[in-house]
Amino acid sequence: MKHYDVIVIGSGPGGYVAAQRCGEGGKRVLLIERDHLGGVCTNWGCIPTKSLLHAAKLYVHAKHAHQFGIHVKEVSFDLAQAMAWKEETVNTLRSGIAYLMKQSRVEVITGEAVCRDASHVQVGEELFSCDDLIIATGSTSAPLPVPGSNQTHVLTSDGMLELKKVPRRLAVIGGGVIGLEFASLYASLGAEVHVIEMLDEILPMADSDCAKTMRRAMKEITFHLGCRVNAIDGKTVSWEEQDGKSGSCEAEVTLVSTGRCPNLTGIDGIGLDITQGAVAVDNRMRTNIPRVYAVGDVTGRSLLAHSASAMAETAVASILGKPRQMRWHAVPWAVYSLPEAAGCGLTESEARKLGIDVQTASVQLRSNGRFLAEHGKKAPGICKVVIDRDRNLLAGVHLVGSAASEIIWGAAALIEAELRPGDIREIIFPHPTVSESIRDALYALDDADKEQHHA
Amino acid sequence: MKHYDVIVIGSGPGGYVAAQRCGEGGKRVLLIERDHLGGVCTNWGCIPTKSLLHAAKLYVHAKHAHQFGIHVKEVSFDLAQAMAWKEETVNTLRSGIAYLMKQSRVEVITGEAVCRDASHVQVGEELFSCDDLIIATGSTSAPLPVPGSNQTHVLTSDGMLELKKVPRRLAVIGGGVIGLEFASLYASLGAEVHVIEMLDEILPMADSDCAKTMRRAMKEITFHLGCRVNAIDGKTVSWEEQDGKSGSCEAEVTLVSTGRCPNLTGIDGIGLDITQGAVAVDNRMRTNIPRVYAVGDVTGRSLLAHSASAMAETAVASILGKPRQMRWHAVPWAVYSLPEAAGCGLTESEARKLGIDVQTASVQLRSNGRFLAEHGKKAPGICKVVIDRDRNLLAGVHLVGSAASEIIWGAAALIEAELRPGDIREIIFPHPTVSESIRDALYALDDADKEQHHA
Repeated sequence: MKHYDVIVIGSGPGGYVAAQRCGEGGKRVLLIERDHLGGVCTNWGCIPTKSLLHAAKLYVHAKHAHQFGIHVKEVSFDLAQAMAWKEETVNTLRSGIAYLMKQSRVEVITGEAVCRDASHVQVGEELFSCDDLIIATGSTSAPLPVPGSNQTHVLTSDGMLELKKVPRRLAVIGGGVIGLEFASLYASLGAEVHVIEMLDEILPMADSDCAKTMRRAMKEITFHLGCRVNAIDGKTVSWEEQDGKSGSCEAEVTLVSTGRCPNLTGIDGIGLDITQGAVAVDNRMRTNIPRVYAVGDVTGRSLLAHSASAMAETAVASILGKPRQMRWHAVPWAVYSLPEAAGCGLTESEARKLGIDVQTASVQLRSNGRFLAEHGKKAPGICKVVIDRDRNLLAGVHLVGSAASEIIWGAAALIEAELRPGDIREIIFPHPTVSESIRDALYALDDADKEQHHA
Repeated sequence: MKHYDVIVIGSGPGGYVAAQRCGEGGKRVLLIERDHLGGVCTNWGCIPTKSLLHAAKLYVHAKHAHQFGIHVKEVSFDLAQAMAWKEETVNTLRSGIAYLMKQSRVEVITGEAVCRDASHVQVGEELFSCDDLIIATGSTSAPLPVPGSNQTHVLTSDGMLELKKVPRRLAVIGGGVIGLEFASLYASLGAEVHVIEMLDEILPMADSDCAKTMRRAMKEITFHLGCRVNAIDGKTVSWEEQDGKSGSCEAEVTLVSTGRCPNLTGIDGIGLDITQGAVAVDNRMRTNIPRVYAVGDVTGRSLLAHSASAMAETAVASILGKPRQMRWHAVPWAVYSLPEAAGCGLTESEARKLGIDVQTASVQLRSNGRFLAEHGKKAPGICKVVIDRDRNLLAGVHLVGSAASEIIWGAAALIEAELRPGDIREIIFPHPTVSESIRDALYALDDADKEQHHA
């Protein structure tokens, strides 16, 4: 029986980063993956969607650039070619991870891992032992428990990445990040898209002003809010509205994007504390079993690739004897739709629920020089800041508009560095950039203050 | 004679921000502008160039998106229409500034200001007095002292914004930000472009690895480095190379972008300390004359729009009785060419010149998931970090690649917040973004360290 310092189960952005950091830290590591290196993120999530969304954006730009003086005849989109580009990207990154594992002296095997106890993992016929075990088994699309959801045209995100042609009509059940990215993708490519969301607003993690701006910006998509889907009868998706009325739409393809469930197969026999279907962990990513850690989606916390990597680094810190805590208050997120949205920290309503004395201010991006130069004065876009008044700290930044995904990291830096709004206003932002809207929103706080005092 | 608390001369991003902040601070302010509100930045600089560069990027993308599955027939570019879009953007922002001035209760007059002394300014027949005077007269393109540079086809950046058609061949004398942006613009639109730079490398403020990457990325442009132009004979631009060889190229249009000179007209009679052609100031933006401040390009320091605004806010802080110092160490810059470049803080060679114990690391962006998904594995792109080892601080961040201009603000925040490299590595960057390359470069430092120890 081969022994390792650390065994990692699952090679997504939680698992491969955990394995890499352990390897770099001098540990002897075994990484077990049942499918492709990179997990959902690299193979069926972040990366393939971004490849396709980029293609879709270029297509939209090519079609609608008359106002800038660009005239094209006959623009067509070849989905198969875009899918091939996506495949190439995925393959390159997958090889990149394999190379990284080699560099970090991580052994990789393919197979279904079954934990025998906290220090023994079986893969096929072979049994391996370890001192520390890191569970990074990820998650799977949650099934939709309604009649008709098992039909072949009712897909998860995986299926949406394999479509051979753009559907004429697409129904998207669930208006979260995944739902919205696919809605944007296929709407850009010409599909008539209906998004059916159970809650009153799309993008539950977004500030409500941003979510509203997103809906306004994605005017080619029809949103059905507060609607609970109760059946998919053939091509007809039916729902019930909050007031009891019913509605429906026809769709060639239906995407179910109502959430994801932690993957517990193979790890459920060793006495782990499973709470609400996920492996319970503390802020050092320790499970209830000594020397067994869990990171990423399987913990049910912050189902984002970069959160998984941060959890992995937190777990490894303990294993390498330099314990640290996972910090959850400055995790950015982004939606790579057209337009993009991104946020970091608390939304206004989250802050209010926590009893924080909140101050907020927003700027419309049409007042921003670069945004105006690139999108004109009618394009929707917003930047909103949330301030914790008692502590005089920036608590949240929320953006809808071009480059939002690339701008938002700085908000994580500001929140982590605990800079005061007054200090941030003294930072020199490059002009002209959309990023300046953060500073402008902070200046708008004064006006918001004055208005509050007048009221 | 009308009296004001503050008179501001010039309404660029130095002057109008100074006027606005004084107005918001309760001061009675007069803003004097000889031409259009917004100065060079809004009317002949940042904003019009960004409008045109965006159009050029869309044009290039429309032509070269086959690999993503986008096929277009007959792409054409209508320069007049792009110029009209640019004009509309400029007009909108100009009106925006006028509105801001009204909101801040700033009086604006149009005319050529002549300072009579530190507290009296004449405009035409009228004389105005003030307690504090802020000089924000900006700069003008430096003339090129060689024979033939007065021909009508030899233009400054202003002229380049009024071209009626794309020149077949364009010579750009000076490979700084302005030169490179116009080179990129017109090369994208089909011109054959030659950039002639006196120094050994383009973009003097950029890290040399980034400048090199830029040249590699802009392969359709011909760069002539270490070449001093000595004549423009008709359409022939002639130069001498460092080894004494001579060279030349033919060009329908020649852009002179060899630098800018402070505008001293109207302010030179009051005894200001003028050093190397610019108004000398201390770090509070005070000139040698009490209650006379100078901000922006006229000071000859950091000729960037956002630097001018920061200088303005620094000067106003003194006037409002809350003095602060201008901080020069975290001023970001960006080049909005295709691809973009941006930087903040010290380059490697600047840091070495300062005697700092420097450590650097770079990552090629083709290893970055988003960059790969959007540009493929052959596209040049780089992220480089410069560390001050003695102080264990991030000293500089340098980027070439998509969204560089929108990413770089966070580097200013990190440098201002004096975060340690170890702290920055714990910040959660959103995945997949190009911004992650900053974190990856910081992780690469360890490897760089190991190599140094082995050496």
